[in-house]
Amino acid sequence: MTSSIISFTLLVLCVLGSVTRGQSPAPSPTMQSKPYGLVIHGGAGVISRETMTPQVENAYRTTLAEALAAGYSVLEHGGASVDATIAAVRVLEDSPLFNAGHGAVMTAEGLCELDAAVMDGNGLRAGAIAGVRHIRNPILLARDVMEKSNHVMLTGEGAEKFAQSLGYDRVANEYFQTERRRLQLEKAKEIDRKVGTPEHVRNEQKSGDEFTFDGIDPMPERKWGTVGAVALDQAGNLAAATSTGGMTNKKFGRVGDSPIIGAGNYADNATCAVSATGHGEYFIRATVAYSISARMAFGRETLGAAAKQAIDTVGTLGGTGGVIAIDRKGNVATPFNTPGMYRGVHLSSGKPLIEIFPSEP
Amino acid sequence: MTSSIISFTLLVLCVLGSVTRGQSPAPSPTMQSKPYGLVIHGGAGVISRETMTPQVENAYRTTLAEALAAGYSVLEHGGASVDATIAAVRVLEDSPLFNAGHGAVMTAEGLCELDAAVMDGNGLRAGAIAGVRHIRNPILLARDVMEKSNHVMLTGEGAEKFAQSLGYDRVANEYFQTERRRLQLEKAKEIDRKVGTPEHVRNEQKSGDEFTFDGIDPMPERKWGTVGAVALDQAGNLAAATSTGGMTNKKFGRVGDSPIIGAGNYADNATCAVSATGHGEYFIRATVAYSISARMAFGRETLGAAAKQAIDTVGTLGGTGGVIAIDRKGNVATPFNTPGMYRGVHLSSGKPLIEIFPSEP
Repeated sequence: MTSSIISFTLLVLCVLGSVTRGQSPAPSPTMQSKPYGLVIHGGAGVISRETMTPQVENAYRTTLAEALAAGYSVLEHGGASVDATIAAVRVLEDSPLFNAGHGAVMTAEGLCELDAAVMDGNGLRAGAIAGVRHIRNPILLARDVMEKSNHVMLTGEGAEKFAQSLGYDRVANEYFQTERRRLQLEKAKEIDRKVGTPEHVRNEQKSGDEFTFDGIDPMPERKWGTVGAVALDQAGNLAAATSTGGMTNKKFGRVGDSPIIGAGNYADNATCAVSATGHGEYFIRATVAYSISARMAFGRETLGAAAKQAIDTVGTLGGTGGVIAIDRKGNVATPFNTPGMYRGVHLSSGKPLIEIFPSEP
Repeated sequence: MTSSIISFTLLVLCVLGSVTRGQSPAPSPTMQSKPYGLVIHGGAGVISRETMTPQVENAYRTTLAEALAAGYSVLEHGGASVDATIAAVRVLEDSPLFNAGHGAVMTAEGLCELDAAVMDGNGLRAGAIAGVRHIRNPILLARDVMEKSNHVMLTGEGAEKFAQSLGYDRVANEYFQTERRRLQLEKAKEIDRKVGTPEHVRNEQKSGDEFTFDGIDPMPERKWGTVGAVALDQAGNLAAATSTGGMTNKKFGRVGDSPIIGAGNYADNATCAVSATGHGEYFIRATVAYSISARMAFGRETLGAAAKQAIDTVGTLGGTGGVIAIDRKGNVATPFNTPGMYRGVHLSSGKPLIEIFPSEP
């Protein structure tokens, strides 16, 4: 018993050490109470210190801190992990900075089409929506699919009808649209014209190499900015929530990994909760979120090793992105293979921490 | 070397023994050539000898045999596992007997909405479509998503537009509709009226128990009939293909497990190929298809143990259905927790075999 407490303490301290890398030492965990905590992300991608002004960086850090506080407050007051993840994701959906809800990227037709998923590790309950255009907070509808339908995934106009049946307001698509995303769409279309290759002839799946035409990467800034949260509550329940606008200039009703249970989002009380961000096609093919749970359950891997392996697998296929993950002991992992990932961590044993770059001073 | 050949022979004979349970002994495998083979299914559900006339049973067995022969012929001539699975699934889609393509079940609006997925275990390439209404063979479009787009999943009208861009014929939805499915839809609606509970108040995820109202199961015959195929070719490549019309009286753009890579369909040359059938929501929550691969990869489980565990997990959640699976050595597993599952197996080391019930004489 004593030795297990000691090893648990070491484990917590070790995790804190890696999470708060370079920060002042976190306070010792209180052994009387069970650990709990929240991790959030606002997308992974080509984020560099060189191209980011202090003002922009500050805006991101402020909103991430606000989302982290909103979710952590739920946990602190004894609330459920599902509620905490949704509280955090709502803040990120409402912000124009991230690719979810208001400020989502645009389809080829200049519309915002939103996907979201939530999973409750208690009983493996899940809900997801794909391709909705008129739901202010897609994550709330995903939750209602989980709690108020007998389905897991609803799509398009059908999902909107389900929302109507529950009394949701139907917001105009213009609510989601922002000037910044309109410019990104124009830029993406311009690149596509330069590349000159019709959608159905290109195929990234044919090669694990980075996908370029004459040195032009047709995908910069298109596939990132998804938001998500994972939480462990005081009752020991894990949950994951993810929301996205998908990929700039997307066509043909494309669905990425975010609303795919097992790919972009997964939670199981027996293992961990995971939310992913990145080039969704690769995350679907590698079933990333569930693979981390599976590595822990069947391979007895640690959360950190499992999450790193999952991102390495994405990399092997030629994909980029990252995940946030928390396990039932409160261990945290946030691996990514992009230059940066917007993220925040607040464990009951420590202070809130916001990070963007791989190794922050 | 010799001992490994002997153990391989024993393995093959053991597998054949379980597959051909009660049949006359299969011929010895030819040790010179690599094993290859095909497994198909036409859905799992409440199928009983008592309620099935010999004529109906014969019709099912004949079409299953035709699909099995179509796919196996590809393998026999050295073709690719992807081609073999698609050849088999096309036959089942074209038959009015199964819930896929022509003869698919109907939505609440009396339409057929089709989902399909294919995965190539060589490189983890995948393609899927959901909610299409005008594509004669949905499995062909899923394949074109994999091979001719840079996406994995396309949905609804967008997927139809992608098909148009490739020159697909747009077939009328009436092509898929059959009198039998219209009667099933009427029956389902009648049960829903009797049950009198609106869709969004019921929630199967709240309980692991069988979902009934006053002894009426509102879901009989609604959620089964999906078709699928898995194959191992002479080059050692695995593939899986799945196609479905989903659930009778489905609403709100509901998507089940079939087009969800990892849930209803998965293939990885390193492990196995899987196609699932059953109550899709449970298969999504348990990430069934990929979980079998993960149990083999991370837990070193055999295909048979992994597949059985996956179906047991579905059962624990309260779900019913089955999977077909083949691994890279040619081992086959076809577990299901329903009274029956339409299925067929043809391994290079044996004869074609069609089965419907758990234990056939």
